[in-house]
Amino acid sequence: MFNGLLNQRTTVPQTQVDFEYDGPCMKTSVPGPRSQNVGAINFFCNYEESRGNYLVDVDGNRMLDVYTQISSIPIGYNHPALLKLMSNPNNLSTFVNRPALGILPPETFPDTLTDSLLSVAPSGMTRVQTMACGSCSNENAYKAMFIWYKNKERGHNTPSDEDVSTCMVNQAPGCPDLSIMSFMGAFHGRTLGCLATTHSKAIHKLDVPSFDWPIAPFPRLRYPLEQFTRENAQEEARCLEEVEDLIVKWRQKGKPVAGIVIEPIQAEGGDNHASPNFFRSLRNIARKHGCAFHVDEVQTGGGCTGKFWAHEHWGMDDPADIVSFSKKLLTGGYYHKDELQADKAYRIFNTWMGDPSKNLFLSEVLNVIRRESLLEEVARSGRALLNGLYELQVCIRKRATSFTIIYPSILTGRARGQGTFCAIDVCDDATRTSILLKARNKGILLGGCGERSIRFRPALIFKEYHVHLFLNIFNDILAKHK
Amino acid sequence: MFNGLLNQRTTVPQTQVDFEYDGPCMKTSVPGPRSQNVGAINFFCNYEESRGNYLVDVDGNRMLDVYTQISSIPIGYNHPALLKLMSNPNNLSTFVNRPALGILPPETFPDTLTDSLLSVAPSGMTRVQTMACGSCSNENAYKAMFIWYKNKERGHNTPSDEDVSTCMVNQAPGCPDLSIMSFMGAFHGRTLGCLATTHSKAIHKLDVPSFDWPIAPFPRLRYPLEQFTRENAQEEARCLEEVEDLIVKWRQKGKPVAGIVIEPIQAEGGDNHASPNFFRSLRNIARKHGCAFHVDEVQTGGGCTGKFWAHEHWGMDDPADIVSFSKKLLTGGYYHKDELQADKAYRIFNTWMGDPSKNLFLSEVLNVIRRESLLEEVARSGRALLNGLYELQVCIRKRATSFTIIYPSILTGRARGQGTFCAIDVCDDATRTSILLKARNKGILLGGCGERSIRFRPALIFKEYHVHLFLNIFNDILAKHK
Repeated sequence: MFNGLLNQRTTVPQTQVDFEYDGPCMKTSVPGPRSQNVGAINFFCNYEESRGNYLVDVDGNRMLDVYTQISSIPIGYNHPALLKLMSNPNNLSTFVNRPALGILPPETFPDTLTDSLLSVAPSGMTRVQTMACGSCSNENAYKAMFIWYKNKERGHNTPSDEDVSTCMVNQAPGCPDLSIMSFMGAFHGRTLGCLATTHSKAIHKLDVPSFDWPIAPFPRLRYPLEQFTRENAQEEARCLEEVEDLIVKWRQKGKPVAGIVIEPIQAEGGDNHASPNFFRSLRNIARKHGCAFHVDEVQTGGGCTGKFWAHEHWGMDDPADIVSFSKKLLTGGYYHKDELQADKAYRIFNTWMGDPSKNLFLSEVLNVIRRESLLEEVARSGRALLNGLYELQVCIRKRATSFTIIYPSILTGRARGQGTFCAIDVCDDATRTSILLKARNKGILLGGCGERSIRFRPALIFKEYHVHLFLNIFNDILAKHK
Repeated sequence: MFNGLLNQRTTVPQTQVDFEYDGPCMKTSVPGPRSQNVGAINFFCNYEESRGNYLVDVDGNRMLDVYTQISSIPIGYNHPALLKLMSNPNNLSTFVNRPALGILPPETFPDTLTDSLLSVAPSGMTRVQTMACGSCSNENAYKAMFIWYKNKERGHNTPSDEDVSTCMVNQAPGCPDLSIMSFMGAFHGRTLGCLATTHSKAIHKLDVPSFDWPIAPFPRLRYPLEQFTRENAQEEARCLEEVEDLIVKWRQKGKPVAGIVIEPIQAEGGDNHASPNFFRSLRNIARKHGCAFHVDEVQTGGGCTGKFWAHEHWGMDDPADIVSFSKKLLTGGYYHKDELQADKAYRIFNTWMGDPSKNLFLSEVLNVIRRESLLEEVARSGRALLNGLYELQVCIRKRATSFTIIYPSILTGRARGQGTFCAIDVCDDATRTSILLKARNKGILLGGCGERSIRFRPALIFKEYHVHLFLNIFNDILAKHK
């Protein structure tokens, strides 16, 4: 039934991941007897035995990992290049002596930054600030935008005595009523500042005090995007209009929008896409109204969309004022334009300010990405994956329409993606849960997002043959689903 | 001139740090020619050559480190036990494969937790949540307190539809108007939630939106504490009264206090101490008013006060509902009582939830602390340090009163400390800056805190002979200060 894909499998050029296993291998259902199931824990892992795209659990089950620790493993488990780095005695000190990077950086740190983060800096940005995780990156990016906005407002003059005294007790004007605009469905982290811009699931936000900040609608597009260009353009225009209205409204409220934060693809919120044109227009609206424009690439960054940054798909020289990252970059942080640099030392600061040992790994990850042309690989695997998902949708639907009604119509025709950053929608949440569990027991690890989406977040070494292996197993699961 | 101390030096039992250098060795002024001086950066370091209590910079200057990366290096640089841990091939995988700890922990993680964090759990606490840094630890601790408070308020019933829908758009009742009480002079981090409870320096807070949360006065005590017990008790009573008034006032305002957060010694805010009795009373007030009690041990924890946790000096079986940590513990996180456990998975969550490689180091640090009885060492070094600081104060004052007026009265008689967590006050900020720079050029690294304090934050392997070495050099600096 999967002829197109099976044919492809023998004709495309294959690149292998030579340090990994040759397929899933299941010994028990998961979680198995040796995994204790507590809270959010899925199961316990044997990271020593995990290789490449395969995660091994404590019961010896070996699963093809299409979720990669919530999209945070760039080049698979136990990559030889990273193990080799660990065996170099010159690197030991970086692991053992974690510095207060903001005041006492290692001699080699500027070079490490040049080799790692700065070598993949987004267009127009030559500055980067490292942080320990994604939330801290966004929190500090927001602070950088607030500081920038207020400095602009006071004409770069010294803050008044009133500013200084009121800020100490959390009051305006020192702690001003500024806001960050975010979008419904967004996820930017869970610390209190970030959480005020996160609107993906109630469980993240319930019971936590927040800020009265504007929330714009994110376009709800129809997929495949190419088939619905006109409807989608209308929907995007509606959202952009609302963005401008909200900026004006919040200015009138006395809570001006200092910055707008957005994901290039809303991930946690359900893999919601928007067109390059939408983002270009939004960037212009931000500029027009004097708001900083912050692109959150914590989940989209690092190559999984087939470009190193998802915003590169927009084709802009000046895509953003701030780009934050974490996950696949192994260290958190944000790039920023010169003018977003805080005017004084210690305004953006904490004890660790990141972790140089993570930059060391990142340098090596970037070497592997370049040496093995992994972005091209991702683009190729991504095409195979998305085509396979399209076929599955049609396949299942065909069955439904040809009255093979013992299989319900499970997939709802919303397959979408960029690179291997793909998703499909399932008819309802219960079916999704059931499919995710069945897939896991067949040796395929997947994750959910949004209300009824399944997200694909493989490592950058997920090749076409992994795609086919996945599609064959997944097809079986769907076919047998009752 | 330092006879008392010099005598001691030859009579006390000496324990050596056998992997370190025998003293400071300065080749240039600091920052030297190879250090670029940008923003907050003090100078660039050669961590490979640093050993024990000695930090070496890129120009080959070797300094006795009494600041230890803002108090975050527990057992000195390049400790052999930590280097050995790195050379164990069984540990490599933990560094190379960072998991999403909340969902896919390594098989060994429960044991690692038992060996590390849980082996030093505060009294009454059997649960710990790891996080990546101090700010994230406090942010999540605050969330845990809000969740606990609201669950209590709604009688542990399911949240209403209105709760669920309003929280998605940052509005009450889903995002309730709850508050965290903090103290003037406090420092709890710089992300937006933490920052609303930080009140140490304007530069941290200026231009960042905040919450209208109550801020109580922290006792301003006179030192040495033993000499001013009556005045200090009065001052503490005044502050405690204000705490209760504020709790009532904020409840009436509709912003009830869900939790009270406090440092056992206000560190960044100027090494402000309070008595065990103050903290015991505060803990009781929190209980009486149904507020959670959160002790922030990010800077005080890990042994530097001569006990593993500073709150142990209060002598309580039930010192807190939450104790947060980071820095010397190498991983962030917080301990909490059972009832502060969030009622559902994913309420307290993020991608990494800490970093198991840091727990691996921590296990070994704790082994070293036990094996070498470092808490007793800290208590002994701390007594020598505080006595030395008392002598210096008197010494300088004597000179001033005996009309040797070419030396001004530099120290203001406020030497204070617990273990090696000590501080002195200098007459003014400019003098402090000058003394810190002079000390650095003589091979002694110190830090400032508050408006005019110098804080001492050596590693736990700072022995009595390091104290004497420091005191001799510091005495010279003060004597020559103009």
